[in-house]
Order: sequence, then structure tokens, then C-alpha cells
Amino acid sequence: MPHAAPARPLADGDSLHALARRLFPIHRSLTGDGVRETLRILAEFVPLTLHEVPSGTRAFDWVVPDEWNLREAWITGPDGAKVLDARDHTLHVVGYSVPVDAELDLADLQPHLHTLPGQPDAIPYVTSYYRREWGFCLTQRQRDALRPGRYRVRIDATLAPGHLTYGELRIPGQSPDRELFFSTYVCHPSMANNELSGPVIAAALARWLSDRPNRLAMRFVWLPETIGSLVYLSRHLEELRRRVAAGFVLTCLGDEGTPSFLPSRRGDTLADRAARCVLSHLAPGFREHDFLERGSDERQYCSPGADLPICSVMRTKYHTFPQYHTSLDDLEFVTAKGLDTSLQILKRCVEVLDANAIPQARIVGEPQLERHGLYRRPGEPGGFPPRLLLDLMAFADGRRDLIGLSDRLGVPPWELAGPARTLADAGLLHLADADSPNPPRP
Amino acid sequence: MPHAAPARPLADGDSLHALARRLFPIHRSLTGDGVRETLRILAEFVPLTLHEVPSGTRAFDWVVPDEWNLREAWITGPDGAKVLDARDHTLHVVGYSVPVDAELDLADLQPHLHTLPGQPDAIPYVTSYYRREWGFCLTQRQRDALRPGRYRVRIDATLAPGHLTYGELRIPGQSPDRELFFSTYVCHPSMANNELSGPVIAAALARWLSDRPNRLAMRFVWLPETIGSLVYLSRHLEELRRRVAAGFVLTCLGDEGTPSFLPSRRGDTLADRAARCVLSHLAPGFREHDFLERGSDERQYCSPGADLPICSVMRTKYHTFPQYHTSLDDLEFVTAKGLDTSLQILKRCVEVLDANAIPQARIVGEPQLERHGLYRRPGEPGGFPPRLLLDLMAFADGRRDLIGLSDRLGVPPWELAGPARTLADAGLLHLADADSPNPPRP
Amino acid sequence: MPHAAPARPLADGDSLHALARRLFPIHRSLTGDGVRETLRILAEFVPLTLHEVPSGTRAFDWVVPDEWNLREAWITGPDGAKVLDARDHTLHVVGYSVPVDAELDLADLQPHLHTLPGQPDAIPYVTSYYRREWGFCLTQRQRDALRPGRYRVRIDATLAPGHLTYGELRIPGQSPDRELFFSTYVCHPSMANNELSGPVIAAALARWLSDRPNRLAMRFVWLPETIGSLVYLSRHLEELRRRVAAGFVLTCLGDEGTPSFLPSRRGDTLADRAARCVLSHLAPGFREHDFLERGSDERQYCSPGADLPICSVMRTKYHTFPQYHTSLDDLEFVTAKGLDTSLQILKRCVEVLDANAIPQARIVGEPQLERHGLYRRPGEPGGFPPRLLLDLMAFADGRRDLIGLSDRLGVPPWELAGPARTLADAGLLHLADADSPNPPRP
Repeated sequence: MPHAAPARPLADGDSLHALARRLFPIHRSLTGDGVRETLRILAEFVPLTLHEVPSGTRAFDWVVPDEWNLREAWITGPDGAKVLDARDHTLHVVGYSVPVDAELDLADLQPHLHTLPGQPDAIPYVTSYYRREWGFCLTQRQRDALRPGRYRVRIDATLAPGHLTYGELRIPGQSPDRELFFSTYVCHPSMANNELSGPVIAAALARWLSDRPNRLAMRFVWLPETIGSLVYLSRHLEELRRRVAAGFVLTCLGDEGTPSFLPSRRGDTLADRAARCVLSHLAPGFREHDFLERGSDERQYCSPGADLPICSVMRTKYHTFPQYHTSLDDLEFVTAKGLDTSLQILKRCVEVLDANAIPQARIVGEPQLERHGLYRRPGEPGGFPPRLLLDLMAFADGRRDLIGLSDRLGVPPWELAGPARTLADAGLLHLADADSPNPPRP
Repeated sequence: MPHAAPARPLADGDSLHALARRLFPIHRSLTGDGVRETLRILAEFVPLTLHEVPSGTRAFDWVVPDEWNLREAWITGPDGAKVLDARDHTLHVVGYSVPVDAELDLADLQPHLHTLPGQPDAIPYVTSYYRREWGFCLTQRQRDALRPGRYRVRIDATLAPGHLTYGELRIPGQSPDRELFFSTYVCHPSMANNELSGPVIAAALARWLSDRPNRLAMRFVWLPETIGSLVYLSRHLEELRRRVAAGFVLTCLGDEGTPSFLPSRRGDTLADRAARCVLSHLAPGFREHDFLERGSDERQYCSPGADLPICSVMRTKYHTFPQYHTSLDDLEFVTAKGLDTSLQILKRCVEVLDANAIPQARIVGEPQLERHGLYRRPGEPGGFPPRLLLDLMAFADGRRDLIGLSDRLGVPPWELAGPARTLADAGLLHLADADSPNPPRP
Repeated sequence: MPHAAPARPLADGDSLHALARRLFPIHRSLTGDGVRETLRILAEFVPLTLHEVPSGTRAFDWVVPDEWNLREAWITGPDGAKVLDARDHTLHVVGYSVPVDAELDLADLQPHLHTLPGQPDAIPYVTSYYRREWGFCLTQRQRDALRPGRYRVRIDATLAPGHLTYGELRIPGQSPDRELFFSTYVCHPSMANNELSGPVIAAALARWLSDRPNRLAMRFVWLPETIGSLVYLSRHLEELRRRVAAGFVLTCLGDEGTPSFLPSRRGDTLADRAARCVLSHLAPGFREHDFLERGSDERQYCSPGADLPICSVMRTKYHTFPQYHTSLDDLEFVTAKGLDTSLQILKRCVEVLDANAIPQARIVGEPQLERHGLYRRPGEPGGFPPRLLLDLMAFADGRRDLIGLSDRLGVPPWELAGPARTLADAGLLHLADADSPNPPRP
């Protein structure tokens, strides 16, 4: 069901942050109506399509679980007053909790409570997708205030065959069969960096790419982490293998920390090379992680059986900031400025990949720039520096794409596409396809 | 003539040192009864076979020399008293000395005496295999005490056509055609590190491997250095080329110095990779030498014409300790502890090579460990850490064997074989043969 | 027109410097009689052939320009006295100036004057090959002394269809189809390092190689920079591609600065490897530049369409010394000692390339040097160190040429050719051709 509503603008950090604020309070989980509502709001901005996959569907080594929908979850204390209510914070209930409605002593309740003693003001994020349990999460301070006595707990939820829901958007490009792939996840409740920064930036990138002619096709997916990417892979594996020139898992893009990079398993794919090249110019002190520190859907996309060229450009990486997977990962930690800077970096990555090509000289020797009207005297306006044109020609040996030439010449890759095109238009070089097919799987 | 006597245990440093003490006083040389006696004692522990190769046999650029047997060698001084007797120390006579029985002045004797002025208490080790000479070795202090006058010298030795003797042991493995090769030498008289540590450790490894099921076949040789390995190569070259997956020259394994490593000429063979990987965990500060510093039978095994994947794991390398090739290389320099630690390192090398394999994922994406009963919660006993299982699956791309995975994951290689086998048993990965054929010779 | 006059000696720095002094005052430019006169003087030393290429001839993206010949160029001041005369210094006139004969005010003259305010005693070197202009160059001090008033300027020059002239010398070698290539330029007027050191050293190398048997053929060209090398390439491209094993652009070889190196575009061709290897022994602190700093005819020879294995060994590189392209680049900056040392370095490069080969052992194992009369005891005269012979044999695996072996063994390459030949003569190794064909062009 494509959503063709007139799309709203989503171009700067403020609009991104505003969208994140709308999505923040929704009860998301692996499955259920929270995911659907999230995708419908995103569809106001980009014409994504919702897909529903029945519970029980196989996805390689996995099976789509039952759908979980929460109606209410709360605890009342010995005096009958509400101690805790998932209406106050989505994190208060353990994700995929089975229904419960019972009275019990505090001592019997305790094993079902989750807190972070070291972060006494933070509510932890806990799920139990594949073990049938129920539980509540709260701050350590809240827990310490609980008095002995009888408590009533109620979780009114359905956990029954239904569907897993994901959103997809495909934007055609001039290339018939090569594309960029962007994957982000919509299964975490109210957390801002390790969730909402991803879908929101994905929407902004998709909006920007929808309004611009692209050489490469573009594919975006918003899906639940792990089971969602496995389901998507199981439906599109051969197509993705054949078409994806490079891809990005979008996550942790909203804080103001130093940019960081998690490479693909191979570490030297086109995606890795583009990301490293762009970061080396826009964030020279960026932090490169090892694939051993992986933790999001690259675990599936880069698995040996899939072997896709996909990496992650992030701000502060998941697992490495104290707010991670707690209620402190909120909309103060994620800022308009953080979102905006991340969007600019990713746009550069996309531009560089979309403009990439392998220059091959069509002449022997240097060109005589004057003859082609390409010589610019020092100080003259317009055109390109002659030395840059000559350097491009000198290295146009068919062994390096524009990203490799950027590394070799020490010039940002986005400053090479124009000169390369100009030299090609003058007949001095040929721009060959740089999106080589992916290597065969082992 | 196989020796099938019930083998004695040889499992710890003390038993190794005791065996070295028995072998120490024997008059060994390139050929002769000392070698035979040494091999017969070793045969009490492992069922090695003795081979006899006639003098005059060609071995590539070399010829097996005449057999040398010494009956006695001594000098008496002007007063008729014994100045020197090979019965006191086997090093007193130059190896392969021709017979002599003469009286001469001290001045005429001097050119036949060998001492180490810089180590006045050490008897040097001198041989003259291919120039017909005679001589005696003594300490500088002994030499300084010699008074002018007439001396009688007598070397009663035979140097005549006979045989070169070596020992060989082959232990079958499950693999029909891949094996590990261990070569050590038995041609040095009373020296403990640069000789006896090698044959004794070889015997202990052979004993250990005889009592355990091995994937790879195992081949051990005890032979005279240089001419012995050339003879062995000349008889088995094509077989060794075809079968040897990795090999080790065993020498200088008895002192307590920092472990060291001499790579093969290629430097990156399976043997080199296993040795470096094991040493990086068991002796992180190990010293890596250059193949230019070679000095034992890798000179033959790694020669371009043979090109076998053979390296040396040692303690303090020959040529680099002051006791080398002197009477100070004795059974105090070599200790039970030194022998024991070396044995443990070599056992690990063998284990790692015998368990080596190339994991290849059989699924797309990560496995759902719970479904396979492979998920262990933090603190639960038994099984393997889930993250280690997932890391193994994530890198099971058919491009790395377990040694390469050990390097990539930073986990000792012997901690990977069990998890890999468990994942294979669960049908999640395939373990492919890691003992690739040797590259063709140039 | 070959010049077969009896060649004069040119073997040491003094004779090189004397030749440079003769060539210094000649009015050279891209074309014209100054080039011809220069080549005729060089022809007294080496039998080079002059070639004439008509104006208008195409050379890839370029066209041979009209020939320029200067008769006189001067300025007289308001008092009628000569202010400037090209007879005093060839740099006083802008190269390729169109004729002019006019009176004008100082203010109108100023735009035609070129000086270096930062180097007030230096006359700059200025040309205008492809824009029709006229101009004069002078020191800043001369310019500052000009008084307002009427000046007469006269440039009596012809710029008309004629020829481009270059010199070529080919010395046959034993090899039917492999050669070394040396290119230098003769288009700069009175400058000593960035011009004359090149043609003079080229002549000395050619003289030396003419009197010695060479395995490789040798080819030398003396031509105008850029358009000359393009013309030469356009006439000989396929032949050069097929034959040139390695080559050198000869320039900036006369000062006494630290040797420097500009690699080919590929950076690892035979020429690069030889140059780096020789420099690492003769000038261990040599400075390696990046191909991005290129500036002479490697811009053409190493262009992707030509892709020849050509590099530059220099003293202080063009663009990096303050005298560059000024009247200060004179015969005091260039010295006999500087020229002599450079000649020795280049001779070594040539020797190493001419003696290069890939040793391949013909035996298994080490040789028994005694059997071949190749064993030299420590202190014995003659022959080669046994360890060097054994090291050569140990690495004679057909994967390294003598240059690679020099790097591996840490021995100067010119100390390996003799031992390798001796081992080959003894039948112990085979010396295979090391001048592999150039890789195919992209």
C-alpha cells in the first residue's frame, strides 16, 4: 500500500528533531501496531510501502514470532496507588511480556523488576522476545522506594499469531541494476539515538534523493532489527547480491559525539571506501571500530551467506555511550545539530557513490589544456585549477575510481566529479563504471 | 629394523632431562657407533626404525662421507702424564680426526690445538668432516699450563667406508596423505641444548602422538645434520613435497630463555602461521629471527629445490648464546623446566595444526542459538560463550582457517576448535580442509 | 645526420663542468638554432643523430609550434643608453617573444617586464610558447633603477614555420629487444642545474656505455621538454612500450644537494626498484618525492597512455631550490663535484639494471662449496664470502631478481652479480631473464 500523500519537507536538523519528537512516545516492539503507526507517520514524508509478514514465516535459521500488542501495563502498591504505568514511559514494561493480572508480595514481585543500580535515575530497556516472561523496568530510586506489602500487577497484552511489519521505499535511478541500500530499525520504544535518529535520517535522505536525479537506484527499509533484516534478506537475497553497490545501516546518528565508523566484514568494499574517504575529510578524527564490535543489522547483511557491502557511519556507537538502552537516550541527548551534521555526512557519502566512476585517459601524454579552453591562469575565475585537471589525467589509468583518486590526490572526492566530467566532455578521458559486481559468495 | 619394545613414559621435564643425561656422554659424530647407540636408547621410548646409508651415496650436491669411529684419543706430556683424554670429555678430540700416533714438540703440537681465549674454561667444539686433519680441543687454562717439551699424541680412529645412520618413525593419521614432519639431529657429542634437547623432545612428542588419535600422519627423523637431512630429502623428496602440511626442525629447546622463532624461507607457510599464532599467546614477547639467520636443517628443507613448509620454534637460538658449541652447553644450562615448557609449546603447535580447518557458514545470517540449544546465559555453566559462537559464524567465510580466525578474533587457536566442531555438529557451518597443497616449486 | 667525429673523453666532473660552461651561453628555446648548436657540440662527444620535425606536426593532443629564432633583443632608456640586452644574459628576453620595435613610456613598458621582488638580484625565466606576447626579464634592482620617460624596445625574432630539433643515440646491446632509455632536455637557455646538468650527464653516460659491452641496448634522447618528448613518443610509442625495461629522465644532477628520487606513476617498476636500491646504499638519506610532484618529461612517459617504467634520480629536485628558473641557477651552483657524484650514482643504476637476472637454484639443498672450489676460509683472499654464496642459493627461488635479493639480503646489488655469475658457471643456479615485459596498458 504505497502512501502517495504530498510529502512534507524534512531538510534540516530542526525538522528532523520535530519528527523524532512525534515518534518518541509510540509503543514500538518487534511487531505490532506501534511499528505500523511509526511507519504511517514516516509515510507523511516519503512514499514508503508497508509490508506484512505472517508469524511463523521462516527466515533462514529464524522464525517470525507472534505479534505483540500492549494495551496497558501498571503496578499498584499496598495503598492502591499506581506505582508504575507504561503510559508514563514505554520502557516501564519488558518488551514481549506475556499477560499477567495478579496480586503478590513485594518479595515475589522483585524477580520481575529490572533496574540499573549504577545509573539510579535511568529506566533500563529490557525485552524477552524468545522466552515467555513478564516484567517491569524502573529506576533504582523508584525501586528503593517500594515498601513491603501486597502489589497488584497487570499487563494486558496480546501475544498471538499476527504479522511482522516493515516499510520499504525504492527510488529508481538511471542505472538499470545497481543501487544503494539503506537499512534502519523501528523496533525500540522511546529511545532517541539508538533508534529514532536512524529512521528519521533515513526519511530525510529518501526525501532528498526523491527530488534529485540519481545515477544509482536507491532502496530504503525501515524494519525491526535482526528478525526484520533476516526476513527482508530471505525475500530479496539474490536481488540484493546482484544490485547493491554499497549500503549503510543507519543508527546512532543524533548525538553530537565524534563520528565513528563500523566497517563491513570485508572491510574494503565500496561502501567502506566511500565512508572512510568522506569521513577523512569531514571528520578527520573519526573513530574506526572493528567488525568484532558489530551489533546491528550488519550482523545479517555482512554474514558470509549474504556478504553485502554494507557499513555504518555513526556518531557515538551503540554500546559505547552510558545512555544506551536506557531512558536517558532521550531527545536532549539527540539534538537538531547532531542530526543535521550526520545528515550532511551521509549526503556526502551518497553523492560520492552516485558520482563515482573510473577515469581512463583517452590520449597519450598530457592534454594541452589551452586547446580545449580548460586552462585557467592563477587568479582567473571559473573552471578548475589546471594542476587538478592534469593530476586527474595523470592518474586516469583505469586502476582507481574517483574515491581512490581522492585518496591518492588528497582532494575531497566531491571536488573530483566536476573536473572528471569536464575532461570527459572534452574527449580527454572515459568514465568507466565503478560499481563492480560483488565478489562471488564463498 | 623396527624396535617394538614396550615404550617407556616420557611426559615431563624430569624424564626428558634424565634421558638427556643418559645420552650426554656418548661419542656422536656424523656417522659411527655413537649415532647408533643414541638411536637405540631413543628406541626404548619410541618405535623408531634405524636406516643405514652406505658411504659414497650421492645426495644432490653431496656425498655420504666415510664412517668415523673413535677408539681413543689422548695426549701425554713431557713427564708422561695424561694431559688430555677424550674419555674425560668427548669434545677433546676434533670430530673426524684422522688417526695419529706421534711424538712432537709443543711448538709443533700447538697448530693442532683449539681453544677459546675469550672463554678460558670452555672446551670448543671443532670438526673437520671434509678436510683430512687431526686435532684436540681444550680449555684455554689447560693450554696455558702446557710446558715446553716432547708430547705424545694418539688418536686411534677409523675413517673408512661404512654407513650413515638415521632413525625414522611414522605414525599413521586419519588423513591418507597429509602429515606433520619433525626433524632433529644426533651428530653432536656432549652438548645439551644444541643437540640433545632436540632428539629428546622429538621422542616425547612422538610418544604423546602415538597414544592419541591424530587427523594428520606424523613423521619423525633423527639424523646427522646437513648430510643426514640431504640424504633423507634425496630419498623422500616427492613424498615430502606432496604430504608435508607443516614441519619443525627441533633444536635448542632445553634452556630457560625467551622462546624464539626462525621462519621458513617463504615465511608465511602453514607451519609459520601456526608457530607465530601459538607463540603470540604462550610467549607474547617471543623473538622472531630472519631466515638469513638460519643454521640448521631448514637450510636443506627450505632450499628452493625442496621448498617445504618447515620452521623452528626454539628457546635461545643457536649462535646467540655463549655456551653454543662449547662444553658449557651442558646439563645445567638445559633444565627439566626448560624442556618441559618447550614441550608444551610444541604440543600446542601440533594440536592447532591437527585440529585446523576452514569454517564455512552453511546458513545466511546469524544462527538463532536458542533453537540449537547453544545459547548460554551469562554465568550459566557449560557450553561456549554465545559471542564466541557468533564471532566464529560471522567470519566463517571460507577465507580463514582456525589459525587465521585466532589472529582475527584475538582468541587462542586451541579455544576455537571445540566451538567450531559444535557449530558444525549443529549443521551451521562446514569445516573444510585447511591443509592446502604446497605451492609448486619454482 | 649521424656525427661520427672521434669522440672526446667525458669521464670526470671537471670535463662535465667544462662542457656545461661551453653550452651555457647558447640561446636555447623549444625550437631554433640554439638547440641545433647545443646538439652539435654534444655530438663532439657522442655520435648522436639530429632529427628535424616540421612545425604543425601533430603529437597526440599537441601540435609542434612555429620555430623561434632570436637575432637581438634590447631596451634603451630615455638617455639612449642600453638598459638591457639579451646579449648580456639569454634570460633577458621572454622565450618565444613576438617581434617588437617601438617607443613607449615606462608606464606602458612595465606590463612587459618580469622580475622577482623576493629575489632582487635574480633574473626570472619566462616563456610564452602558446600565447603570442613579448616581454623582458630583469632583476628587481634593475627595474627599480628605471626612470620615467620614453624607452625603445626592440626584439628582432622570427616565429615562423620551421622545425623542432632533437638528438638521438642508440647503442646496441646483446639483447635483441630490451633496452634502457635516457631522456633529457635542451630547451632552456642559460641555466645550469635545471637543464645543462641533464644533457651533459647524458652525454657522459652515453660515452661510458659506448665503450663497454652491454647486455641491454641503450637509447638516449636530447629534446625540448614536453613537446619534444610528446613528439618522440608519438613516433616511437609501440617500440618504446615493447623494448624499454627501465628509463630515467635526467635533470637537476649538478648541485651538491642530497640525492632525491621521483618515482614513476606506478612506483614499483624495474626502474623504480633499481633506483631505490642503489640510492639506499649510496645515499641512504635520499629524499623520495611523490609522483604528484612530477614536473618533467615523466609527465608524458608515465602518462596512462604511455605507461613507461621511467623515473628520475636527481640531486635537489626542480621547484625545490630557490635558484630554480632564475639566473642564479648558474655554474657556481652546479659544480664538478656535484656532477661527478651524480654520474657515479647513475652508472651504478645502469650497471645494476644491465647485470640484473633472476637466480633459480638448479640443485636441491645447499651446495657443497668445497666440491666446487668455492669455499673460502675466513681470511683467505680471493673468491666470495661463503655465506654470501649460500644466501644467494638459499633465496634463488625464481621469485626475486638481483635487485630484490639485494633488498632481502641487505647487500649492495653490485656485489651480487659476480657471485651469481660464479654460481651459475658452477652449474648451481640458472640466471633467468629479469626484464619482464611491461604490463599491458589499461
